[in-house]
Amino acid sequence: MFNFNEDNFRKVTKGAVGLRGQIEEIGEKLTARGYKNLFLIGSGGSIAIMYPFEYMIKTTSTLPVYAEIAAEFVLYDHKQFGPDSLVILSSLSGTTKETVEAAKFCKDKGATTIGLVGELGTPLADLTDYTLVNYSENDTASDSIYLQLYLLIFKLLAARGEFPEYARFADELEAMPEVLLDVKRATEGPAEAFVNKYKDETYHMLIGSGSVWGETYSYAMCVLEEMQWIRTKSVHAAEFFHGTLELVERDTSMILMTGEDESRPLMERVERFARKYTDKLSIFDTKEYELKGISDQFRKYLSPLIIASLFERVSVQLEAQRNHPLSTRRYYRTVEY
Amino acid sequence: MFNFNEDNFRKVTKGAVGLRGQIEEIGEKLTARGYKNLFLIGSGGSIAIMYPFEYMIKTTSTLPVYAEIAAEFVLYDHKQFGPDSLVILSSLSGTTKETVEAAKFCKDKGATTIGLVGELGTPLADLTDYTLVNYSENDTASDSIYLQLYLLIFKLLAARGEFPEYARFADELEAMPEVLLDVKRATEGPAEAFVNKYKDETYHMLIGSGSVWGETYSYAMCVLEEMQWIRTKSVHAAEFFHGTLELVERDTSMILMTGEDESRPLMERVERFARKYTDKLSIFDTKEYELKGISDQFRKYLSPLIIASLFERVSVQLEAQRNHPLSTRRYYRTVEY
Repeated sequence: MFNFNEDNFRKVTKGAVGLRGQIEEIGEKLTARGYKNLFLIGSGGSIAIMYPFEYMIKTTSTLPVYAEIAAEFVLYDHKQFGPDSLVILSSLSGTTKETVEAAKFCKDKGATTIGLVGELGTPLADLTDYTLVNYSENDTASDSIYLQLYLLIFKLLAARGEFPEYARFADELEAMPEVLLDVKRATEGPAEAFVNKYKDETYHMLIGSGSVWGETYSYAMCVLEEMQWIRTKSVHAAEFFHGTLELVERDTSMILMTGEDESRPLMERVERFARKYTDKLSIFDTKEYELKGISDQFRKYLSPLIIASLFERVSVQLEAQRNHPLSTRRYYRTVEY
Repeated sequence: MFNFNEDNFRKVTKGAVGLRGQIEEIGEKLTARGYKNLFLIGSGGSIAIMYPFEYMIKTTSTLPVYAEIAAEFVLYDHKQFGPDSLVILSSLSGTTKETVEAAKFCKDKGATTIGLVGELGTPLADLTDYTLVNYSENDTASDSIYLQLYLLIFKLLAARGEFPEYARFADELEAMPEVLLDVKRATEGPAEAFVNKYKDETYHMLIGSGSVWGETYSYAMCVLEEMQWIRTKSVHAAEFFHGTLELVERDTSMILMTGEDESRPLMERVERFARKYTDKLSIFDTKEYELKGISDQFRKYLSPLIIASLFERVSVQLEAQRNHPLSTRRYYRTVEY
């Protein structure tokens, strides 16, 4: 595949699913000790990756769950938060300032924290009560975090008796390194063609729903805006019809990220609209991928990871065809503000 | 004031605060009967107006609160939702399809519903267990709904012993019709100048935080996009630094909606950044308004209403100076989709 190291991808993703034993031990220990609710805390991409799990938990479990933006969370007194709260945070570098501060804040309040990091010896790793370590790089980070979160969150739900199919789900996750490689391979052509057609576009609408919404939000903000300096509007499929639709003209680029959970009809409705009113419609639909070794009943949970992983193929095409490195920044970690 | 009927505004807003007696009765009845949690459900502008209250409740009360997008909510099984849930929905016309369907869904599940509508005899009014009626028009609807929600939500919190200053707060709300008129009057000049300067701008970034975030989101989507066909990106002040900032150039329009709650430092940080990197910075800050008769301790709760009300002055200027009626739609209620 273009600009891609398959061996490295296998190493990272197998490393993530390889944490299963450690994760299950943590899950059992925490369940035995008890906790009242779950806080998922992050910023930008690292909060966006939590939104799918917030969605999946609220539709699967009675465990109260709150996804919170790190920098805002530390400024107020969230009345559900306390010593019997469980917190999950992630930072690939382990140094993201706002996430590290949130971890400190949680520790000071006596909550139990779990950190997902790329390496030990980093500030976040040193602060959290439980630390999961799996080395990855930018292009494999979200695959790694997703796989660990599937194990961790669904293990917690299983321990509450709310996800009895956990063992089979966790077994099937072991197929994900090859499943994701298949997904990426199948996306090579479409991604290249998509970028070839739209590389000079200066504005995209991105639409998603349900467990995929987090990826829609973050691909718009953290890739197209941050890494490619292209303007975007990310809008939830249900909300699209309450304003943003009025902007659509025949030459408006609309990118649909369609997953397989209960909210799929909302995306189908946007698709019907878009087919009528724009000539620039692009649909990336998880349903079009085989996912060998994954049971039908688990596909809906995996939609956001499939979307994240296939869009990595779009990103490398954007970088190459637009001659704009994904790592170039005007401001972030470049100037003080 | 330009294109504004002060008497009508007074009638609508006094009508809203005049519901106090009825609202307090409902609040006491519901509290005596008991309920487990609160669901705030809507679409577009009517969910955006709920976000401030979700924020205020979670920072003031241990009452579990969930703001949900109507069309998505009815598709899944929210595990916190049930017969002991209390639901608030609003629709000026009482006919918004998705809101009416959500009300039906909630009724079928045995939850208790409260509807805020412009008139009786409409589908939403007929469906809800408790109905608050206050006639308003598009330009006064959000003032009316805000005032009713302040009374209703804070009465519920007071009845739980979590907002002991309720009676004084409710007394002071009676000053809001004149306070808001003062705010609007003071905004006439700045709004006209702002629109004069930016009327041909084709893209704006809108930034807000905390209790004001809902207004930021909805002004971008439901006014600039829907009613003026201008592209926008609305982004939370904390999230701005995780992607969107990279788009900022000297000629990028940034609109800051700054309120007075705990999250204000996040807006100040965006302002420091914006002052350095763009020449097109517009700040609308609630702190610059006097709010005669309102105690300092209550100002932070009222920030989103102040922002909503002052931006109505911007909207009428956009309509006039851009020669684009606020009521013109390409699609909404115009075509089938």
